Parts: sequence; C-alpha cells; structure tokens
Amino acid sequence: MPRELRAVDWTGNSLALIDQTVLPQRTETRDVRDVDDLVDAIRRLVVRGAPAIGAAGAYGVALAMLQGKREGWSREEVLAAVARVRAARPTAVNLMVCVDRVLARFDEGLDAVLAEAVQVQREDVAANRAMGEAGADWLLKRVGEDRPLRILTHCNTGALATAGWGTALGVVRELHARGRLEVVYADETRPLLQGSRLTAWELAQEGIPHYVQADGAAAGTILRGAVDAAVVGADRIAANGDTANKVGTVGVALACADAGVPFLVAAPTTTVDLSTATGAGIHIELRDGAEVLEWGGVRTAPAASRGHNPAFDVTPARLVTGLATERGVLEVSAGELPGDHLK
Amino acid sequence: MPRELRAVDWTGNSLALIDQTVLPQRTETRDVRDVDDLVDAIRRLVVRGAPAIGAAGAYGVALAMLQGKREGWSREEVLAAVARVRAARPTAVNLMVCVDRVLARFDEGLDAVLAEAVQVQREDVAANRAMGEAGADWLLKRVGEDRPLRILTHCNTGALATAGWGTALGVVRELHARGRLEVVYADETRPLLQGSRLTAWELAQEGIPHYVQADGAAAGTILRGAVDAAVVGADRIAANGDTANKVGTVGVALACADAGVPFLVAAPTTTVDLSTATGAGIHIELRDGAEVLEWGGVRTAPAASRGHNPAFDVTPARLVTGLATERGVLEVSAGELPGDHLK
Repeated sequence: MPRELRAVDWTGNSLALIDQTVLPQRTETRDVRDVDDLVDAIRRLVVRGAPAIGAAGAYGVALAMLQGKREGWSREEVLAAVARVRAARPTAVNLMVCVDRVLARFDEGLDAVLAEAVQVQREDVAANRAMGEAGADWLLKRVGEDRPLRILTHCNTGALATAGWGTALGVVRELHARGRLEVVYADETRPLLQGSRLTAWELAQEGIPHYVQADGAAAGTILRGAVDAAVVGADRIAANGDTANKVGTVGVALACADAGVPFLVAAPTTTVDLSTATGAGIHIELRDGAEVLEWGGVRTAPAASRGHNPAFDVTPARLVTGLATERGVLEVSAGELPGDHLK
Repeated sequence: MPRELRAVDWTGNSLALIDQTVLPQRTETRDVRDVDDLVDAIRRLVVRGAPAIGAAGAYGVALAMLQGKREGWSREEVLAAVARVRAARPTAVNLMVCVDRVLARFDEGLDAVLAEAVQVQREDVAANRAMGEAGADWLLKRVGEDRPLRILTHCNTGALATAGWGTALGVVRELHARGRLEVVYADETRPLLQGSRLTAWELAQEGIPHYVQADGAAAGTILRGAVDAAVVGADRIAANGDTANKVGTVGVALACADAGVPFLVAAPTTTVDLSTATGAGIHIELRDGAEVLEWGGVRTAPAASRGHNPAFDVTPARLVTGLATERGVLEVSAGELPGDHLK
C-alpha cells in the first residue's frame, strides 16, 4: 500500500477512515464527523485492529468536542459521547488506554486534545517500527540466519490495523526489507476474512509473495514443516502473558508448540493490561452469530442453525514463545512475563 | 433428513446423487449415467465423504459396464473407465477399496457387480450403526454418565457423507437417540462449508441443537471447557493410526490433547489402509487455490494472491484418543494400533 495511506487520518475537522469492510474490491474512505458514526464504524469493523481502534478512539475525543460545540452539548454530554466511543468494543485494551490518555487533556481544550491524539498516532507508528526490528532480529537469531523465512500469520496486523506500518505484519515487512523473507502464509481469518481481504491486499501492495489459506489449514501447514515461525498481533495481553487475539490464534499457537516452531506475538506495550492478571479476566467479545451463518448477506447455513461467534480467543502464556514490543522481545514461555518487565 | 434420503442411490440404470454443492439452499438430485459425469461429480464434491465416494465408486463399475454396452466399448475401455473412477480423488482409500471389491466380480457380469455394490452400501450402513453404538458407549463411559454431552465435530460425516446414517455424525445421532446429547458445535469447514451447509442441515433435520462456528473458533471452544469430546471422520487411516481427514482436523486434535478432552475418530475398517505404514505415506489432495480465493465465483482475495488449499491434514496417532469402527473402539494414543488389531 502507498506509504501515505492511513487507516485512520485526521482531516482537520473530521476523521477519515478507510472502509475495511469493502477492501480489496473497493478502496473507499468514510468521512466521520459524528460520534455515533464513529461508534458504528468501530463496531462494524470499518476500522479494526487494536492499535487502529486506539488511534480512532484518541481522535474520537476531539470529534466529540467538535460535535458538542456544533450541537450545543453540555460538558457531561460530551463526556458521555466519549464514553460511548471508549466502550464501542470490549476486548482491545488500546481503545480504552488511548481514549483515557487523550481525555486527560480535555480541560486544556481542543488543541491540546488534538495534539495528544496526533502524538498517540505518531508513537504507535514508531512503536511498530521498533517492534518490527526487534521481532525480526529475534526471529533471525532464533530460527537461523542461513535462509529467508517462511512466516505464517493470522488476521490483519498491518498498516490497516494500526496507525501505520503494522505490528506482526511490521515484523514481516521488516524481514522483507532485509531480504530475509521467502513467503507468507496468510490465514483467511473467518468469519470476516481480514486475512484474505486485508493482509493479502497489503502483502500484494508490497510485492511480498504469499499464500492465502483456510484457517483450518494452519495447523497442518505448521506440522508439515512448511513454516519457520508464526507471528500474530494481540488485542489484550494480561500481566502473566496470556494473550487475547483474533479467534483462531490459539490453534496456531498449539500447532507451533507441537512442532517446536516459534510463536511470536507483536504488539505495542499499550496492549499489555497490567490490571488484568491472567487471560481468564479478559472479556471476549461475542459477535452476532449471523457473521458465520451468512455470506455477503446470503444465508449459507440452514434457518434453524445458531451461530457461535467469539471474535477472539486467549492463548496461554506457556504457548507464547516471544512477545515483541517497542522495548524488545520478552521470552514469555521461558518465564519473562509482561507483568514483571513492563511496569 | 428423511431417513429414506440417500446421498448415493442406484435407480436401476443410473446413479442418483444428491448435489451436495447446492445444499442447503436447494435439494437437487443429479442423475448420472456416464462415467465421466461420475468422475466430475466426485471431483467437484457433488458427492463427497469417504464412504459415500466408496459407494459411488462401487456403483461406478456397473455404470461403466452399462455405458460400455450402450456405446460398444471393448473390455479394456470399460476397465479404463473404471480406473478413471477409482482415481477421481486421491486421499480417501474407501474409493479404491470399494471399486476393487466390486471389480473382482466383473467377469461374473452386471448382475453380480450390482449385487456386490448393493452389498457394499448395506455393509456401510450397518458398519455406521455399529460404530455409532460403540462410539457412544465409549464416550459415555469415558466422559461420564452424569449429563448430556457437548460434542464438537468437523466437516460432514453424516448420511450425506456415507451410504447412510453417518460415521462421526452417526455417533452424534446415537447419543441424541439415547437422550445423552446436549449440543453440537459444528465447525463450518472452509473452504467448502461442509459443516455449515451439510452437517448443520442434517442436524436441523434431526432437530439436534447445534451451533455453527468458524473453524478458528474450535480450539478456543475446546480450551474454554465448552466441549466434552470431539468426534470426526476419516478419509484414510494408516496402520499406525495416523489419520487423514478434512483439513482443520489436526487443529481440533491438538486442542483436545491440550485440554484433556477425548478426540474420537469414527470410520469403517475400510478406511484403514494397512498397506500405508504411517501418515507420511498418505497422499494429501491439493485442490484448486481458487476455492480459498473466491466465494460463489466472486473473488474475495486480491488478484495477486495465490491460494494454498490442501483438502486434508494428518492427525498423528498420538493425538487420536479413540478410533471407533464397526468392530469397536481402539484406544490408539494408548497403543492400540489399527495395524495390530484390524488385520
């Protein structure tokens, strides 16, 4: 993707979001000026990916202030609107962290809030670059320096999922930039196909060789020895290293553990929620069952069927070989726990 | 589904196949009189499921003889047509076994061949009933008799996949008939959705409570403790118990092993290939990548993306808690290997 394309972009008085529900067929931008439209965009995954939602939430505070001014809201009404943004999705902690950080400057006025939101976005890009380098260094050291790597990834963690560059896909892009990447296996990531629609689109834009595969193929691909490492993102990481990420991630981690292949989580430290002790404390969003019963609005399952549609799963820390953040790589399964190192 | 509905039905001079590519939206039957149409139907998964393909292959010998008579084929031409049926798909051993069994009566003429094919079909239904009972007994003993079971299954192994009743789904139906089934989690089974289209349809017809879930949700559902056992079918089982089944199966097995949940394979002994020592010797069909890049003929992935589309994976014997056949249950991971017990 052209480097200047941003999933979340502040225009001066509105938030421009690339509509990720229609990629790769169409590249459309939604211009959001209204808090309820932003909440809807976050819920419907127009904007998705924990860091990108965080950035959208950060600008959401400014959006609420501007809308409040236009519509004559009280301070309480503005704060209630911000609270709606903050609660738009429950699992990713970045949304809450970023909203709270920007909200702390609320009393200083719009300019201060906007400056903080811009800073949130800048820091996320910088964190992605740093974790990409740290993750690539670690993988090359761990897997071996003798040949380019074959990497499996799940869901989308690239520029579209972040303020820019990417988390797990940032590691992949860094390997590619160093000439040390052979191929990417991108799980399609049902039900919403963030892998085949978004990750594949970003990889295609970068000219990175890749296969799209069914999520069910991941374990077999890993056990067959076709993959040197799996790299995924995270929506929330507990203090003990338990990691919530897109549903299907723990299956990838189990296969990696069985095959002795490194399983690397790449996420900014804002994803680590030190107030959550273990994965058992992470609220897993249960989305509408229709997402697994329909396709493009057409019902594929029988009318009598119900859908079970958790958006995330929790990978136990014991299966997380490495956690790459902007501060370096923690070897979680070897006992380097986020709660001990990231205070 | 009405009990008299058969995925594979001999009409007297043709083979009636329920078109499983259009279920559950439409219930259509294809009347096959031509060997090349049968090969096409097997390849395109109009008829699928190892035992159902076996039955179709058995009748395929009769079909080749009838077509040869109509079109004045030589004996060699008839046998070449049979060989095309036998090779239509590479992984399921039942197809080869059933064709060879019926072909052994080729020189006795059409009536003998048809009688043998009918016998193949009858025996498969009887085997399914027997393994359903054995599997249900074993599960109830293993998991506990105190409450109805929550079963996870992958792909379709019901009446549609067999000559009737079902293998893994036969175990599920048996539990339901005994009032010992709470709910089924049916993995949708990408890329062709045999789970959400076919298993869900059969379960709905039987009034069995069920959820359809993305394949990626399976591991999390199991690790969260929502499942008492997983029951799946098989396309080929090596002498050591390594089991080839629909892609995604080994991920279910890994999650079951991690969670200490029984992983039961249900398959007739015709699925066991004693001439294959281990899973490494099983040919895994690699299907057209377009199946994971398109939906209903519409491209969902970018034009530059390639698809990686293995139709099956191999679950190592160490992960197979039980193997239910018509002869009872072998505890494979505990050392009861098919090669020792099913000669």
